[in-house]
Amino acid sequence: QGTRDHPPAHVRLRDLLLATVVACFKRHGASAIDTPVMELREMLIGKYGEGTKLIYELQDQGGELLALRYDLTVPFARYLAMNKITNMKRYHIAKVYRRDNPATSRGRYREFYQCDFDIAGQFDPMIPDAECVRIVHEVLSDLQLGDFLIKVNHRQILNGVLAICGVPESKFLTMCSSVDKLDKMPWEEVRNEMVGEKGLSPEAANSIGKYVQLHGGLDLVGQLLQDPKLSQNKLAKEGLEDMKLLFEYLTLFGIMGKISFDLSLARGLDYYTGVIFEAVLVQQENNRMEEVFSVGSVAGGGRYDELVGMFDPKGRKVPCVGVSIGIERIFSILEQRVKASGEKIRTTETQVLVATPHKHLVAARLKLISELWDAGIKAEMLYKKDPKLLKQLQYCEDTGIPLAAIVGEQELADRVVKLRDVARREEVS
Amino acid sequence: QGTRDHPPAHVRLRDLLLATVVACFKRHGASAIDTPVMELREMLIGKYGEGTKLIYELQDQGGELLALRYDLTVPFARYLAMNKITNMKRYHIAKVYRRDNPATSRGRYREFYQCDFDIAGQFDPMIPDAECVRIVHEVLSDLQLGDFLIKVNHRQILNGVLAICGVPESKFLTMCSSVDKLDKMPWEEVRNEMVGEKGLSPEAANSIGKYVQLHGGLDLVGQLLQDPKLSQNKLAKEGLEDMKLLFEYLTLFGIMGKISFDLSLARGLDYYTGVIFEAVLVQQENNRMEEVFSVGSVAGGGRYDELVGMFDPKGRKVPCVGVSIGIERIFSILEQRVKASGEKIRTTETQVLVATPHKHLVAARLKLISELWDAGIKAEMLYKKDPKLLKQLQYCEDTGIPLAAIVGEQELADRVVKLRDVARREEVS
Repeated sequence: QGTRDHPPAHVRLRDLLLATVVACFKRHGASAIDTPVMELREMLIGKYGEGTKLIYELQDQGGELLALRYDLTVPFARYLAMNKITNMKRYHIAKVYRRDNPATSRGRYREFYQCDFDIAGQFDPMIPDAECVRIVHEVLSDLQLGDFLIKVNHRQILNGVLAICGVPESKFLTMCSSVDKLDKMPWEEVRNEMVGEKGLSPEAANSIGKYVQLHGGLDLVGQLLQDPKLSQNKLAKEGLEDMKLLFEYLTLFGIMGKISFDLSLARGLDYYTGVIFEAVLVQQENNRMEEVFSVGSVAGGGRYDELVGMFDPKGRKVPCVGVSIGIERIFSILEQRVKASGEKIRTTETQVLVATPHKHLVAARLKLISELWDAGIKAEMLYKKDPKLLKQLQYCEDTGIPLAAIVGEQELADRVVKLRDVARREEVS
Repeated sequence: QGTRDHPPAHVRLRDLLLATVVACFKRHGASAIDTPVMELREMLIGKYGEGTKLIYELQDQGGELLALRYDLTVPFARYLAMNKITNMKRYHIAKVYRRDNPATSRGRYREFYQCDFDIAGQFDPMIPDAECVRIVHEVLSDLQLGDFLIKVNHRQILNGVLAICGVPESKFLTMCSSVDKLDKMPWEEVRNEMVGEKGLSPEAANSIGKYVQLHGGLDLVGQLLQDPKLSQNKLAKEGLEDMKLLFEYLTLFGIMGKISFDLSLARGLDYYTGVIFEAVLVQQENNRMEEVFSVGSVAGGGRYDELVGMFDPKGRKVPCVGVSIGIERIFSILEQRVKASGEKIRTTETQVLVATPHKHLVAARLKLISELWDAGIKAEMLYKKDPKLLKQLQYCEDTGIPLAAIVGEQELADRVVKLRDVARREEVS
C-alpha cells in the first residue's frame, strides 16, 4: 500500500529529471554521500515532531533495533557528527519511508525519493543560505515547469511575532503549525483553530493575523524593521537583519523577481532555526498569480543549526542550511504532461537491430552483433533462430530502433551488410 | 552492523563502476524498472532455500506484513506475473538486504547493491542464455579487472549425474550444496560431508566424484554425450545438448577462450532450472591459472523457468534467464587498487573558484559566480565575506579546482576578470 512499481517509461523520465537535479548540485560544487536505508531507531526518535509516528520500524530479529530513514537530513547530521566533519557541501539522492496516508494522485507515496543539497559549516551570514535559494531557482528553471514563486521567511521572525502577540513559548510550535495552514485555508479558519481549538485569546489571534498575512519584498523588511513592537524583539530584529542581507545577496544573484517574503510560511519540521523557504508553482489567472494547489510545494528547505549537535556526544554544533527538491511531485506533473502530449517515450537506446531475411542465418547474426557490441554500438537481435523479416522490422518500429543491419545469403557472399533506415524505408549496402 | 556510510570518494568510484555496467546493459537493449524496497512478506517466503532466515522483516505496525527485498530476481518475477508481462529485457540496479554474518573485508555487507540483467520470454534455446554469458564477459572486460574465467554448468546435467550415481531425488538439493563447495575445499572433504554427514553410500559418492571433478570445453560435452550411463539419462542428455548449442553460440560471440564447462558449479539458489554460470578472477601463478579466492565470484546467473509461475494465480510460466554483476566485490577490488596507487580521487567537478584579492568585494563575487552558473559552468566561492586570497587558492589545491577567476578593484575598474591556472600559477586577463 502506498508504494508502486516503476515501469521502464517511469524510470526513463525519472532518470532525466534526476540528471537535471544532479547537474545543478554538481554545478554548485557538491559531492555525493550515501548512507544505509536503515538507521538505529533511537537516532530517529524525537527529530520529526508529529512525524515520529510515521516511522517504519524493523522487526526485532536480534541485534540492534532499526528503522527505515524518514528523510535524508537526520542521516546527514548523524554522518557529520559520527565522522567529526565540521565543513561539507554534499548532495544525497535516495528513497525515504513514511507510514503516511498515501495520496497517490497527488504524488504522495510511502516510499519516495528525496534530493537534498546541504551546506554544513560555520560561515559568514546568509552566503550559503542565498546559494540554497539560488539552487531552487536554477532547478525549477532548468526543469521548465512554468512560473514559480519562492516564499521565504525566518523562524526567528515568526517566533518574534508570536512573542509580541502574547503567545507563551510553550505554544510556539503548535501556533506555527496553524500558521503554516494559511496556504491551504483562509485566515478566518486558521483563526478559529487558534482560538477555538488551541485556546488562544481572540486579541492575540487578531494581532498574529495582522502580521502573518503580510507578504512582499525588501520593502516589507524595511517596514517591519520600523515596526515599533517587532523591532524591539531581539529574535525578530536578528531575523529581519538576516532577511535584509539575504535579499541583498539574492538581488546580486538576479533572482529577486521570484522571491516573496511571506510571514505565513512556517514549515512543519521542528529542526529549523533560521531562514526557511518553499517553492510553489503559479499560474497566471485573470491577471493574478495563482498557486497551483494540486501539487503543493515543489522544493523547500532552511537553516538548522542545532541538529548535528544532537548527535555529537559532546553536543558540538555544526550550523547547516539545505534544500530538498520535491522530485515526486515534479515527476507527477511531468508525467501528466507527457500523457497529455501523447508523446511516446523510448525506454531503450538501441541503435540497430541485426536482422536476417531468410532461414539458417542465426550464425551470421550472432557474428555481426558481436562485432557491433565490440565496437560499443547498442544492438539487439530477436531471440529466434529463424525470425521473419517483417517481424524484425516490426520490432524496430514498436521499440523505436532507427536502423536495421540485414545480412542474407547475397550479403554474406558479397561480404557486405545492408543498412536499412526503418522510418524512411531506405537501404544502403 | 554490517552496513556502512559511503563518503564522497566511495560514491564517486561506485558511480563510475555502475556507469560501466549500465552502459553494457543498455548496449544489449535493456530498459530499466524499479520496484519498492519492501515486498509482501508472503512473496519472499520459500523462494531462497536456506536464505529465507536471513530476510529482514518489518515490524507489524498495522496493515500488510512486509519484508525488505532479498534480491532483485524475485521482485522481477513478481512484477512480470502481476502485470502479465510475457516478454521483457530489463535491468535493475538497487540495494538488497540480508541478515547475514557480515564479512566487510571481503566486501560482504547486510545492505548491498545488485546489478541485474534478465531476459524473460519464450524463445529459441540458448540464444538469450548466450547473451547473458556474453554480458558477463563484456562487463568484466570493460572494467579491466584482470584475467577471469566464466564457469558454466547446467542444472539438468548435475541432476542427471546425481540420478545415475544413485542419489534419491529428495537429496538432490543438499548434494548440490555439497558439490558447490568444491571451489573452496578439496574433493576429499566434500566426499566426507556427503558420506559422513549426509549419509550417502561411499560408492555413490565416489561415482559423483568422478563426474564433478571434470572441467573442459566443447570436447568435454562430446565426451559426456558418449558416456554410456549419462547419455541414457533424459535430463542429462537435454542438458548436454543445450551446452553443445550454447558453446556453438559462445564461439560465434568470440568468447570461448574464457569459458570453462565445470561440473562442480551448482549455485546456491533453488530457483535455477537450466544453464548456470559464475565468473571468477584468476591470476597467472607458476604457469597455472589460479582463482583469486579472496573475493569469490564477481558475477553469476542462470536460467529460472519456474519462478514467474509461482507468482501467477493460474501458474502461467514465463521462462527467464539472467545475470547479476557482483558490484560490491568488484568495488572492494577497485578500492584496494586505488588505495595502493595512492591516487587521489576528486569528489567534485568544480571548474572554477570565484575569488577576490582584498576586502569588501563579496558583491563582485556573487555577481560573477551568478553569471558562471547561468552559463552552466561549475563554480564555487568561499562562504566568507572577506577571505584571504591565499586561503582561496589553497582551497583550489585541496579540492582539485583547476582555475580561479579573480576580481579585484583594478579588474572591476577595467571590466575584466583575471583567470588563474592554479597548478601552473599563470594568469591571463
